[in-house]
Amino acid sequence: MAEPLRIGLLGFGNIGTGLIESLEANRALLEARCGRPLAVRRIADIDIETPRPVEVDRSILTTDARSVVRDPQIDVIVELIGGIEPARGFVELALREGKHVVTANKALLAAHGPELLALARDRHVRLFFEAAVGGGIPVIRTLEDCLNGNRIERIEAILNGTCNYILTQMLEEDMSFEAALADAQRLGYAEPDPTADIESIDAANKIAVLASLAFGFDVRYEDVWRVGITQLTLQDLRSAITEGYVVKQRAVAELDAEGRLWVCVRPALLWRFHPLASVSGVLNGLMIRATPLGALFLSGPGAGRAATSSAVLSDLLAIARLRPGAPLEPPFLDVPVGRKPLLSPGPEADGYWLRILTDGNTEAVADIADALVSNRVAIERITESLWEQDHSGATHVVEVFTAQAAEEDIRRAAHILDDADWSPPESTPLVLPRVD
Amino acid sequence: MAEPLRIGLLGFGNIGTGLIESLEANRALLEARCGRPLAVRRIADIDIETPRPVEVDRSILTTDARSVVRDPQIDVIVELIGGIEPARGFVELALREGKHVVTANKALLAAHGPELLALARDRHVRLFFEAAVGGGIPVIRTLEDCLNGNRIERIEAILNGTCNYILTQMLEEDMSFEAALADAQRLGYAEPDPTADIESIDAANKIAVLASLAFGFDVRYEDVWRVGITQLTLQDLRSAITEGYVVKQRAVAELDAEGRLWVCVRPALLWRFHPLASVSGVLNGLMIRATPLGALFLSGPGAGRAATSSAVLSDLLAIARLRPGAPLEPPFLDVPVGRKPLLSPGPEADGYWLRILTDGNTEAVADIADALVSNRVAIERITESLWEQDHSGATHVVEVFTAQAAEEDIRRAAHILDDADWSPPESTPLVLPRVD
Repeated sequence: MAEPLRIGLLGFGNIGTGLIESLEANRALLEARCGRPLAVRRIADIDIETPRPVEVDRSILTTDARSVVRDPQIDVIVELIGGIEPARGFVELALREGKHVVTANKALLAAHGPELLALARDRHVRLFFEAAVGGGIPVIRTLEDCLNGNRIERIEAILNGTCNYILTQMLEEDMSFEAALADAQRLGYAEPDPTADIESIDAANKIAVLASLAFGFDVRYEDVWRVGITQLTLQDLRSAITEGYVVKQRAVAELDAEGRLWVCVRPALLWRFHPLASVSGVLNGLMIRATPLGALFLSGPGAGRAATSSAVLSDLLAIARLRPGAPLEPPFLDVPVGRKPLLSPGPEADGYWLRILTDGNTEAVADIADALVSNRVAIERITESLWEQDHSGATHVVEVFTAQAAEEDIRRAAHILDDADWSPPESTPLVLPRVD
Repeated sequence: MAEPLRIGLLGFGNIGTGLIESLEANRALLEARCGRPLAVRRIADIDIETPRPVEVDRSILTTDARSVVRDPQIDVIVELIGGIEPARGFVELALREGKHVVTANKALLAAHGPELLALARDRHVRLFFEAAVGGGIPVIRTLEDCLNGNRIERIEAILNGTCNYILTQMLEEDMSFEAALADAQRLGYAEPDPTADIESIDAANKIAVLASLAFGFDVRYEDVWRVGITQLTLQDLRSAITEGYVVKQRAVAELDAEGRLWVCVRPALLWRFHPLASVSGVLNGLMIRATPLGALFLSGPGAGRAATSSAVLSDLLAIARLRPGAPLEPPFLDVPVGRKPLLSPGPEADGYWLRILTDGNTEAVADIADALVSNRVAIERITESLWEQDHSGATHVVEVFTAQAAEEDIRRAAHILDDADWSPPESTPLVLPRVD
């Protein structure tokens, strides 16, 4: 058998131990597939004392990540630290040292991806990141290797399993947002500080990476229009389902006919037969629209040790297959620097759903209808009901399904309504796009 | 720019013209991705006179496919003829001549795949066939490049869009099997001779190819346990849906704990929340269960010019990326010769659904219950109703949901019942596995 692929692992927490376990469990099969031994030579973590559920030779453990990255006896660095620093420094150093890098780090890629990819190209090494987006769903290779004969038109996706779990759980178990979040934290699906998930930061990082690859724009985290899911209540989700819609945290990247790219993550009402509407719990899902293909739908586990291991191992096998010294072809889809997306609330929706709280004033419905119509927004349905949630001062809720409209017109109307006498001080109209 | 990839196309019908159209529509994008011009140098078809919807230089058309295959000015042969002969001869000759081959031909692969792949390896060329299974769903690359870090455990799939269209249409439009088939033929989804689709020959070819790749067994067409969909009636589909099940033509390849491989295509009752239950119309879908991944679900267009073009183009781009003269790595998943699957009705189901026609004899239900129980089959529900379909002599239908049972026990019972006095001469009990 050929020379081993010598692996240095940075980060030996839940995901890192999972990777070692998966590698050991299928070692013979994986080595037969790539024709080389897969040798984990060194593992760095800030904590090398706490016992792990997997056995490794203690002599390969170190707290000095930099020494692993610089070790000339290592061919590839697997970065499972997460976050931007110090991961960025290690990845950059590894690439400069001529090592291949496999990372699961979406935040790093959404902040510095183009520069790191350019550095990898410059040093004739690979920077692979299948695990960074979609967990076990192989969406990076799907775009890069499988759909490269297509012009991608739109990616619509559920990319954050934590939010999807919370929204699923609220509806299925009649839970408040807060209770479902606590449940997700108890199960380890949400971090003690859940901000990155529920404020759509994680999903924004991921759609930024996908949009860069699929459309060849320079899309960074800050280019993504982002709305969190914290405003959603159980009553909202129930109202939507009664009308045939499921509320999802939906990430979209769409190239319009004028060649402008729209990238956003925000809650949206999806018609219940929309493929993403059936993606429930911690699963992720993606609808990719392309020409000539049509539409491809993928769903699978979006996070966790098993899903991440599957993705990292496919990256390691691809690297194991490279012939040392042979020139590297650039990837099919390269991340260019230059063209930027629109920073905007996203492509045109089929309509909007508005939820506006009131103090019970009988003029409210007429005011709402007036504000919308005078801003060129046609109303399909408008209903008033009791507001069952605890919200200071609100006793009633008015819900509106609008026809197709410009989001700026909807927002102008919502802004007027926010100032109405009957609008409780702490409430603001909720505006969600609708996908029929 | 580098030297062009010189393409010879065999077959200039619906699919072939679609390929040329898609290539022309996105030429600049595709050539930028692979860094080479994509030059269609010659096109062979038995009919080069009928006008095509796409314009090509008439001087590249020929009726002599063999001359295209032997042309030293061609690097890759795209085989879109279909069927085993003469396609096999051309593909074999092309590989012997040292040309790469891209084919959409599942029948050819299910009959001669291992030999052709061995020949390609021997001649240091590629034989790619993304379009042969799943149409536009990139399932070959998903297995080969994306899930290669996994041990595949089961593939469950809807692989024939024609059957799926017929079954969807029957239920949604209250149509008989015959009417839905005629409808599919009118729309071009079914051939004038629909045998290959409705007798599950096409799907058997496809699951044979997938099973070979995923499990490393030598699975040929004749190794697949195969049941057609012609026995299904609208009343059957309605009965199933009433109980929460959707009837689908389901292909399965599953490796059991003893390392035995089961490969079958047959109609089955899928619980309505099973991901494949939502794959409707001409779409295809696949559930791939693997370790460490978990389960990945894919769905998309399973056939047609656009879907096939997407797949063929990804194969062509992969070939365009190979450096002429550079040694070729073997594929990750290689088709071995040797280990054969079981020829058997498939892995254990969660239970069975039986439909037994009677002449209205009041003893029938008792006889059926007795035959099942005496063959160790536990009954969950048994119902009798009027048989509404036209079937000589049958007036009543008995339906049985069984608990988990050995299929041989079910079949033994069904055999006894087939001989009952009350069994109309032309009817035979229908036995469908159930997936809860």
